[in-house]
Amino acid sequence: MIKTSTASTLLAIATSYLFLFITAPPPKSTYHSLFLSDSLSDNASIARHLHTLTRRPHVAGSEANAEAAAYVLSVLTSLDIPSHIASYKVALTYPLSRSLQLLPTNPPPEPPTTFALRQEIYDGDPYADVADEVLPTFHAYAKSGSASGPVVYVNYGRVEDYMTLREIGVNVSGTVVLARYGKIYRGDIVNNAYEEGAIGVVIFTDRKDYGGAGEARWFPDDKWMPPSGVQVGSVFNGVGDPTTPGWASRDDDEDECERLSKDEVEREGDIPLIPSLPVSGADGEKIMRSIGGPLAEDDWQGSKDAPAYRVGPGPAILNLTYTGEQVLAKIENVIGVIKGAEEPDRYVILGNHRDAWTFGAVDPNSGTAALLEVAQRLGELQKRGWKPRRTIILCNWDAEEYGLIGSTEWVEENREILASRAVAYLNVDCAVSGPGFHALATPQLDELIKRAAQQVKDPDNSSLSIYESWAGSGGSPLFGRLGGGGSDYAAFVQHVGIPSADFSFGGGFAGYPVYHSMYDDFIWMKKFGDPMFHRHVAAASVWGLVALWLADEEFLPFDYLSYAKELQVSAKSLEDQISNKDISLSPLFKSIKELEKAAIILNYERKAIEERKGWIARWKKEQLKVRELNDRLMMAERAFTDRDGLFGMSWYKHLIYGPSKHNDYGSQAFPGIDDAVKMAENLKTKESWHRVQHEVWRVSRAIRHASLVLMGQLT
Amino acid sequence: MIKTSTASTLLAIATSYLFLFITAPPPKSTYHSLFLSDSLSDNASIARHLHTLTRRPHVAGSEANAEAAAYVLSVLTSLDIPSHIASYKVALTYPLSRSLQLLPTNPPPEPPTTFALRQEIYDGDPYADVADEVLPTFHAYAKSGSASGPVVYVNYGRVEDYMTLREIGVNVSGTVVLARYGKIYRGDIVNNAYEEGAIGVVIFTDRKDYGGAGEARWFPDDKWMPPSGVQVGSVFNGVGDPTTPGWASRDDDEDECERLSKDEVEREGDIPLIPSLPVSGADGEKIMRSIGGPLAEDDWQGSKDAPAYRVGPGPAILNLTYTGEQVLAKIENVIGVIKGAEEPDRYVILGNHRDAWTFGAVDPNSGTAALLEVAQRLGELQKRGWKPRRTIILCNWDAEEYGLIGSTEWVEENREILASRAVAYLNVDCAVSGPGFHALATPQLDELIKRAAQQVKDPDNSSLSIYESWAGSGGSPLFGRLGGGGSDYAAFVQHVGIPSADFSFGGGFAGYPVYHSMYDDFIWMKKFGDPMFHRHVAAASVWGLVALWLADEEFLPFDYLSYAKELQVSAKSLEDQISNKDISLSPLFKSIKELEKAAIILNYERKAIEERKGWIARWKKEQLKVRELNDRLMMAERAFTDRDGLFGMSWYKHLIYGPSKHNDYGSQAFPGIDDAVKMAENLKTKESWHRVQHEVWRVSRAIRHASLVLMGQLT
Repeated sequence: MIKTSTASTLLAIATSYLFLFITAPPPKSTYHSLFLSDSLSDNASIARHLHTLTRRPHVAGSEANAEAAAYVLSVLTSLDIPSHIASYKVALTYPLSRSLQLLPTNPPPEPPTTFALRQEIYDGDPYADVADEVLPTFHAYAKSGSASGPVVYVNYGRVEDYMTLREIGVNVSGTVVLARYGKIYRGDIVNNAYEEGAIGVVIFTDRKDYGGAGEARWFPDDKWMPPSGVQVGSVFNGVGDPTTPGWASRDDDEDECERLSKDEVEREGDIPLIPSLPVSGADGEKIMRSIGGPLAEDDWQGSKDAPAYRVGPGPAILNLTYTGEQVLAKIENVIGVIKGAEEPDRYVILGNHRDAWTFGAVDPNSGTAALLEVAQRLGELQKRGWKPRRTIILCNWDAEEYGLIGSTEWVEENREILASRAVAYLNVDCAVSGPGFHALATPQLDELIKRAAQQVKDPDNSSLSIYESWAGSGGSPLFGRLGGGGSDYAAFVQHVGIPSADFSFGGGFAGYPVYHSMYDDFIWMKKFGDPMFHRHVAAASVWGLVALWLADEEFLPFDYLSYAKELQVSAKSLEDQISNKDISLSPLFKSIKELEKAAIILNYERKAIEERKGWIARWKKEQLKVRELNDRLMMAERAFTDRDGLFGMSWYKHLIYGPSKHNDYGSQAFPGIDDAVKMAENLKTKESWHRVQHEVWRVSRAIRHASLVLMGQLT
Repeated sequence: MIKTSTASTLLAIATSYLFLFITAPPPKSTYHSLFLSDSLSDNASIARHLHTLTRRPHVAGSEANAEAAAYVLSVLTSLDIPSHIASYKVALTYPLSRSLQLLPTNPPPEPPTTFALRQEIYDGDPYADVADEVLPTFHAYAKSGSASGPVVYVNYGRVEDYMTLREIGVNVSGTVVLARYGKIYRGDIVNNAYEEGAIGVVIFTDRKDYGGAGEARWFPDDKWMPPSGVQVGSVFNGVGDPTTPGWASRDDDEDECERLSKDEVEREGDIPLIPSLPVSGADGEKIMRSIGGPLAEDDWQGSKDAPAYRVGPGPAILNLTYTGEQVLAKIENVIGVIKGAEEPDRYVILGNHRDAWTFGAVDPNSGTAALLEVAQRLGELQKRGWKPRRTIILCNWDAEEYGLIGSTEWVEENREILASRAVAYLNVDCAVSGPGFHALATPQLDELIKRAAQQVKDPDNSSLSIYESWAGSGGSPLFGRLGGGGSDYAAFVQHVGIPSADFSFGGGFAGYPVYHSMYDDFIWMKKFGDPMFHRHVAAASVWGLVALWLADEEFLPFDYLSYAKELQVSAKSLEDQISNKDISLSPLFKSIKELEKAAIILNYERKAIEERKGWIARWKKEQLKVRELNDRLMMAERAFTDRDGLFGMSWYKHLIYGPSKHNDYGSQAFPGIDDAVKMAENLKTKESWHRVQHEVWRVSRAIRHASLVLMGQLT
């Protein structure tokens, strides 16, 4: 017999269910379709956002960038997305004085050239009145000091370029090297030069790579870099505020945060110890004309109409002086939070940075405009009753250009919570610099991204989906991986092990030659990058849709079979590389097999839960089962990290994807193994090959740990 | 309007609720009371378990220990607790040959003494027939080799003892030191001697500490160590298999696991580099008589009737030889799992080791018997319908004596899963060596343990609860902390950051002088340790009750206010210690304040959820809210760990509780700060005090991270 109170309780339950039925919102998929609909997409609004954001140069720490932060905050707040600013005090550098002189010593002695080091304003430039707010061209964190010595041309300044120079008997010790931008991160150009004994570095944007060689037109007539255009940028080889390695640069009050002294920062080894300057293509060619010695190899040459490139040393002398000031600047990350209705403690994080070297129309505010477009559409969905299952966090980072600082400090501060709650991080830096979709991702996201790309039309060919254009004639799209420290995903994936992705349209220097110059402005975007802002719309569509699925789907749409497949490919390629060495890769292949098996078993389990879904399945017990399975999917990526991190780069904890030691932009699977192999090939000792085997073991153990997590079982 | 199918679904729900009502099991608290009831407690069964487990000496890797494992497995299985063996192949050492000669050089020259190094069997010893299965007395992982030199008496072999010796002009370089057991871990005795330049170490169990000084009786007539009794043990200063530091020693097949070579192990620095031997009290006194030189200080002297202790060096020469063999032995952890009905992916783990140096009646099988008693009572609860909310895991570790190896390898293998799922680890090593309850715990468990101690009667005074006896006249019980690497909790708390506790009755060498000798057998326990086995019953009651509450209570019974209070005490004591130094502790005090605040806020949140509890609250959404709050409680402890670990001891990740550098048994709050202070006091340089400040910052950041986790909010 049921007591009356029980009966009335049952009635109460029935009533509340009834209530649910009558007021039940439409299924999530309805909202997802709505998100992609034309009615919610707004290219005009994107253009307005971009125009507003790029009115003034807004380098990190500047008043203009604080204004831009206030703008982003106001837009998010107006959309009913609770938002705040997470600020940090970090060490940034600005240029105080620069000089570069060329002293030709060819007979007859020519007068010295003093370079102006100034980017030219073109006739009719609407930004002429704020051009003096652009920082003088410089390298952030460059060593202050002077260097004077014969100049040597070192091509892209890679390790292999110095090997080539050694082969023809050219020693760069004591010289000032001239490198061209392009293949590797500029911080590595300076560091490689330092390691070779150079005393100063000058880097130029070669016409061959940035000037549309042979064509006589450049911005504002064409997309190419003008002859006076200079790519500025950071030469810091670390990540985050250099004075707070591994911890957050808090901004509470004066004594709130430990900081390394200048000496300690230098001992950390990520700050250049010789001065450097970036120069224009024109200045680079002028210097090149003064270099004698052997003719450089064919592939070291510039464009057809450039002077013949010789390697030196000298006879010309380069006389370089740079003085920078280091300041403790306030930086501001804008954080907007759409709280999850069912799982508020699971985070899907979207991030883009706001700070720019100059106007930042492509880099990064095309991404910021796309972020605000995503926010607007989500705001619209909210108005119509949508609530995400999981929490969606929109982040607008600061000081990315200096060394991924805003995102890194925030991740370091929130590391423990992010490690246990973050489902995925989705980055967009330059959303648009031209046509053509690109994606980088940790491989469990591949299938999801493909699915999203199938749902969105190619903005440059409306008869095809993005997926179809992306896949091309091969029928299969190419994913990049997140090895290099190229953007704000680094702290998420490489420091904490959060599944991550990065999206863009365009890409490559050939498509976006004005990168990091003062010509990266709204006019360039309007004329060459995305005249109709349809690419921006498409970028926001893919970005937002991937986020929506991650936030709303009951089961996390992660596919670890893709991961296992991708690892298998990387392992095979490693096998080819070291086939003649006495290194056993069998633990590696075995661990990948285990991961594959775990992924298959997990998929079965998911199916089993889905099949018994229905009314009863919505009860608490089943909810916790779904959660348990999702947690395994979420945490498996963490297991690819190791607390010791990469050898000699211990901040990088991820053993599968990380930067290569001599090129921070390089994306390398198994970076620890790769680095050990390079070292062993160099040293040729038994010990160095033994270390390769050790690194193979480390990676194998990490993959095995990931499969244990996927299985969700203790041994 | 409701459609028919909906109506019938509602009916189905109502019916299933009705079903719940009719068959609903009694509340959890009923089972918890039952767990403590006399009807379920069984001292006779505990005695039988202990008797069976201690029939033969069962050192790790021996056949006898495999038999013991099979016994534990069979008991658990018979109770319907699904159990299995998790085995590893690890490097253990056994003695092959030992010799110790004393060559007195006092005039008139006496003949050399060759020590027998044998523990004597007493008349009527029921274990006489298996006494030859006891390993010859030795130190596990001692360096094989010979050492011959004048003997120096170094008291307990602590750093401060060598300072005393230096003050009176005694240099131990090139000597064989004689130390007595007691104040510090024996591995540190050997290491300290090595660092002072000694070439060999002999350690004896002094009558003053182990012999019941002045009394003429010893085992089997009294509890004291017989004159021939020797404390054996490990001198390894690391944790886990020395050949697999930081990773699991898997036992799949031959090539399944990376292993360090002998040289690499020695380079790791945790294996002694000079030979050592343990000797009996009688042998120690004999050597003492041959030492001349200055009389040792008063507190270095032995018992009244012992010879006068002089420090040497010499004139006697000690001639020591030890040869051990290192084998790759199979060890077996027995793991039993009672799956949680609602949160199977949250683990409450109970652990005790099984391997013993000899018979192991106290150490460790009093704990194993208690574990089996807990298992029996849980089995009984299961029969009566109880199912834990969370999963309870019963672990019986192997090779603890060699260096916490069984538990460490298991934790290293399962680290990622444990880090995201383990609620708490509850250790019992020696459950009983005498009267008097002791608890060590991470402080969020203090209140829970007190509560349990209030529920259980003192086995030695039935008019008082354990709590009342434990609190004593002061009214407040004293908790120890989990700093030292004294037992299997090390990997859980110090490597992963899992809230942990350790329980025992008795404790201290004075209560249990036959520690690690062949006299630690069932007879000793029956006569002196726990004649009625009521202390065992009580140990099982406290242990099991704490586990039940952790497994069953909806909200995890963790109290971080206790943690904050305890940290405040430790910080105050640090402040007193370095008050005259230019070190700012304000970040430390500030972080503790933040933790306190976070704990208070969390308590309010918990109350709020509880207050709206009721029918609706049992629905999925509320369940996930409870889970979210519990996850914060569970993960806060993890935040006290740092991926870099302690300086020079990087396996130890916990910055609040960890071993002291020169005494692995020492329990020290803020071990990193403490170590840095000691070093700075020694070096007296600006840099060394700067490192103290750095360590203060590190701890402060860890505490702040813990409060962020407790708050469950991103910045």
